[in-house]
Amino acid sequence: MLSKNEVKYIQSLYHKKQRIQEGLFVAEGIKLVNEFLASNFIVHTVYTLQENMPINIGDVNCKIVTQTELQSISNLQTPNGMLAVVQQQTPSTQPVFTNKLTLVLDGIQDPGNMGTILRIANWFGITQIIASNNTVEIYNPKVVQSTMGSIIQTKVWYKDLPIFLQSISIPIYGAVLNGASIYTTPKPKEGILIIGNEGNGISNDVLPFITHAITIPKIGEAESLNAAVATGIILSHLV
Amino acid sequence: MLSKNEVKYIQSLYHKKQRIQEGLFVAEGIKLVNEFLASNFIVHTVYTLQENMPINIGDVNCKIVTQTELQSISNLQTPNGMLAVVQQQTPSTQPVFTNKLTLVLDGIQDPGNMGTILRIANWFGITQIIASNNTVEIYNPKVVQSTMGSIIQTKVWYKDLPIFLQSISIPIYGAVLNGASIYTTPKPKEGILIIGNEGNGISNDVLPFITHAITIPKIGEAESLNAAVATGIILSHLV
Repeated sequence: MLSKNEVKYIQSLYHKKQRIQEGLFVAEGIKLVNEFLASNFIVHTVYTLQENMPINIGDVNCKIVTQTELQSISNLQTPNGMLAVVQQQTPSTQPVFTNKLTLVLDGIQDPGNMGTILRIANWFGITQIIASNNTVEIYNPKVVQSTMGSIIQTKVWYKDLPIFLQSISIPIYGAVLNGASIYTTPKPKEGILIIGNEGNGISNDVLPFITHAITIPKIGEAESLNAAVATGIILSHLV
Repeated sequence: MLSKNEVKYIQSLYHKKQRIQEGLFVAEGIKLVNEFLASNFIVHTVYTLQENMPINIGDVNCKIVTQTELQSISNLQTPNGMLAVVQQQTPSTQPVFTNKLTLVLDGIQDPGNMGTILRIANWFGITQIIASNNTVEIYNPKVVQSTMGSIIQTKVWYKDLPIFLQSISIPIYGAVLNGASIYTTPKPKEGILIIGNEGNGISNDVLPFITHAITIPKIGEAESLNAAVATGIILSHLV
């Protein structure tokens, strides 16, 4: 049985301040928790329904819970059989830019967009993301869930973008409204692609660093594309 | 002041059954409501904060409400200044397939995905969507909101897909896991693109109608792409 304190403690991890203080986050779902168990992330505790008990749990602390208990610690409307408290990872190395496309996120706010962008990046083989300090935190529970596991393969650094971009000497692509068409942009061997905030695009102190302003040409009437969709389309043309 | 009955009536339109019975739906937000007012949709009633009163309201019934009243009839966590009850439209004509790409949705379930797909379609100039009968209803409030206005320009027909596809003699593209690469697929002058359900893809009774099975080649490790993102990527290569 879970103690009241343990329930409270897990619930507290749905708040950013507490997550940062504890260096932990929550991942939910049978598939996702098993992926974390098989990864190099350190899983602190697994909470699982009896029938979903992982086979290769090793020496990870594992507690059998009831459906009601799982509900009490879950952040999902419909808890999915298993939940884990996992240790956050900060990349131990700096990003490498040779023969790679690196994604830079400038103020992505929506956790669903952030998670979807990690999933898209992973689909296109991008393993490095640099996020501005005001981009949503990757260990936000909605980000973790919407990455569908891609959070495990992707390294994310939070940086002051103007300072970071000053040091970059490879092509810097930026998704803007009046750039060159992505349909005629040659695929770069290495480069950086900057995606801006959902409402305001790339911020004014980042814009001057763009060496290749690019655009998805509009044929119809929609005012804009969702940031994650735009990321997917651009990557499909640049990678 | 709004009567209890009026509040209840608007709230009832957040249920599909009631929406179908009344032939009405709710749209929220200053920008979106003004777009509906300027469109050929029939707006029944506008509920607005005093300061947002539309200028060109014509003879549309308009009620000034307080923030608390707006909250009581809104489906959003943060109501955005204005709400309208609007009459549903069923396309009065049948789809036309000459010199056009038409999108076919086979069982899209998530309202956010559905709305985003309408927005993407509109970006790429696609004005016709055929949806299977089990696809989420376009007048679902979350669909309406996430189309960001693109619901106005797009005609959506709900049809029995196998019966509909039997009559089609132009190329039928289907997004599947093991098709030809979208990077080498020639752009069609006219055709149909089928996007399947988020989890299960295109259904078994629709698959046989595909004449061109296509795929977004995967470079990295993500298991799948979000249905809306996949739609955006494919359209950017086919249109």
